[in-house]
Amino acid sequence: MSEKTDRKAGRATADLVAREANVSRVAVSRAFNPNASLKPEKRDRILKVARELNYTPDMAARSLVTRRSHLVGMIVPDVCSPWESQEIDALTTALQAEGFATLLFKAKADFSMDPMLLTYMRGFNPDSVIAFTENIEPDVLSGFLDRAVPIYVIYDDADAFAGRASETLYDRLLVRQKDGIEQAVALLQGYGARRIAYLGGKKQSLANTERERMIAQVLAERGMAPPVIVPGDYTYDTAYRSTLDLFRVGSGADAIFAANDVGAFGAIDALRHELGLSVPGDVKVVGFDDIPQAHWKSYNLTTVRIDLDDRVRALVRLILRRLKTPDADSLVETLTTRLVVRGTVG
Amino acid sequence: MSEKTDRKAGRATADLVAREANVSRVAVSRAFNPNASLKPEKRDRILKVARELNYTPDMAARSLVTRRSHLVGMIVPDVCSPWESQEIDALTTALQAEGFATLLFKAKADFSMDPMLLTYMRGFNPDSVIAFTENIEPDVLSGFLDRAVPIYVIYDDADAFAGRASETLYDRLLVRQKDGIEQAVALLQGYGARRIAYLGGKKQSLANTERERMIAQVLAERGMAPPVIVPGDYTYDTAYRSTLDLFRVGSGADAIFAANDVGAFGAIDALRHELGLSVPGDVKVVGFDDIPQAHWKSYNLTTVRIDLDDRVRALVRLILRRLKTPDADSLVETLTTRLVVRGTVG
Repeated sequence: MSEKTDRKAGRATADLVAREANVSRVAVSRAFNPNASLKPEKRDRILKVARELNYTPDMAARSLVTRRSHLVGMIVPDVCSPWESQEIDALTTALQAEGFATLLFKAKADFSMDPMLLTYMRGFNPDSVIAFTENIEPDVLSGFLDRAVPIYVIYDDADAFAGRASETLYDRLLVRQKDGIEQAVALLQGYGARRIAYLGGKKQSLANTERERMIAQVLAERGMAPPVIVPGDYTYDTAYRSTLDLFRVGSGADAIFAANDVGAFGAIDALRHELGLSVPGDVKVVGFDDIPQAHWKSYNLTTVRIDLDDRVRALVRLILRRLKTPDADSLVETLTTRLVVRGTVG
Repeated sequence: MSEKTDRKAGRATADLVAREANVSRVAVSRAFNPNASLKPEKRDRILKVARELNYTPDMAARSLVTRRSHLVGMIVPDVCSPWESQEIDALTTALQAEGFATLLFKAKADFSMDPMLLTYMRGFNPDSVIAFTENIEPDVLSGFLDRAVPIYVIYDDADAFAGRASETLYDRLLVRQKDGIEQAVALLQGYGARRIAYLGGKKQSLANTERERMIAQVLAERGMAPPVIVPGDYTYDTAYRSTLDLFRVGSGADAIFAANDVGAFGAIDALRHELGLSVPGDVKVVGFDDIPQAHWKSYNLTTVRIDLDDRVRALVRLILRRLKTPDADSLVETLTTRLVVRGTVG
């Protein structure tokens, strides 16, 4: 009979494993908690015995007892955007090291969330939930969560956001994008840019609204004209088309500040390959995010960076602090941004 | 007292929801199964009542009863590679529609899998597992799974692979890459390429081995010289450096066939921006995958395409067929590949 049917035959109990490995019952459960400290040799021996006896702790059973699911939910609008995918990648690695598995949920294209999907997510009783899609109101999201306190990524002035949030409890990853935006605008100004266009992201994205607001504010503070608003949705193709419209239908610009790097790539390609303009000679371009593709030689993009490692460490800290102190008031971690100067402004 | 403490106060039972919504107990559980058919108005009413009564079916409890976790595990070496991230994105969307949540696990950089992580995954008792990292032997992986039959993506001659797999039960997504590779080589040959280099992927990747083997075979069948093997690892930076070595240290090539599109981008940028060679004028370049970036104007890459929608549909079919017939023999879905002609060969 096949190995498979053997496995179906049934599971050894933790006690049997403990006896066979000649360790305590506690040691066995520690061995299966990547986060619990245990001598490597000891853990290896226990896992080896467990494998021989075909024992695994059942997370479902365990979570009913501990009320811990060891799951961290991530609500993502678009896994394949380079920005989100690198964050999911790094977060999943960091969370695994802490003994959590990543449970992925996709929001709708308009960044909203199907209530049924939220209810469904709640059924898995995640220990924490990170909302990458910023336009699910915290109190709506909380209404669908059992224990988990949602984590929100918010930009610059938290107040506007806190305003929306009523007294619902949620934790914040606060991104100070003003520093980086100021550096970018100063560089553009220093190289003589006067008419700056903002190539936007998805209309429903809060990050986009905040970015547009902050760029307008910085331009005003520096006595420059308000930005020419160019519609975008974070994709290459839309950025490409909107840039053609800006120069063929609209009256152009001498600098384009894109809401994200991928949009900046679309703008650069439209300028160089279809409008016959040089970057940065005729038009300067700045992006936002600093995704890995930003240093690719075809683009060599000057962009505002949010450091990935800092971001991930901050999110993991929020998750662990919240699990340690479930009733603490809203927790906040803060990130700064800075300009990374490459070849598209000069 | 806060909404949060209310929620902690406890959950209504399904029967209470059924009574309040004035439907059957069965209707309530159907309402929470995205896959179960139910009149939209009816489902909305039930979900509304459930929300008011703060009821959610507990997946942990449910999975202990049904032995269904509604989880599909994905073992991924690198979430942020455009290739994998678009597949995870599309798969998660498709699986949600079928009532499954995606459980993400990251393999090690060398594509291998930490046994402890596998044990840990098993604890979640996934309904299915897709191994994107091809070098975990099916019988090793099966040893860590309870009910789930793993799904493997394999290339061209399944035999070599089946050989490795002993009599362990696993399902296959078979990718016929020969068609696309033949079309690419014919096009290169037609445009006069004689000395073709293969810019490889990660050494441990089975896809890479199979691709190299098939390209060598096709070149031989067409009476051409064997490929010049250039080391790579699927990343842009390594491809960039290896291309510089090929032309500055080695004796160059008149065409580069890259193991993936991202590698092709690195080769193109090294040729154009550092070696001062024109693509396709001096050197022709072909990629593999056809990721969204392949049509970006800076690259406009001629590449071998594996259709994403077909791929995802095939994987979902394998999962659903296996759940319907748990004891069926190994299931197979087949995908073909084709050359997408753009601007880097000519």
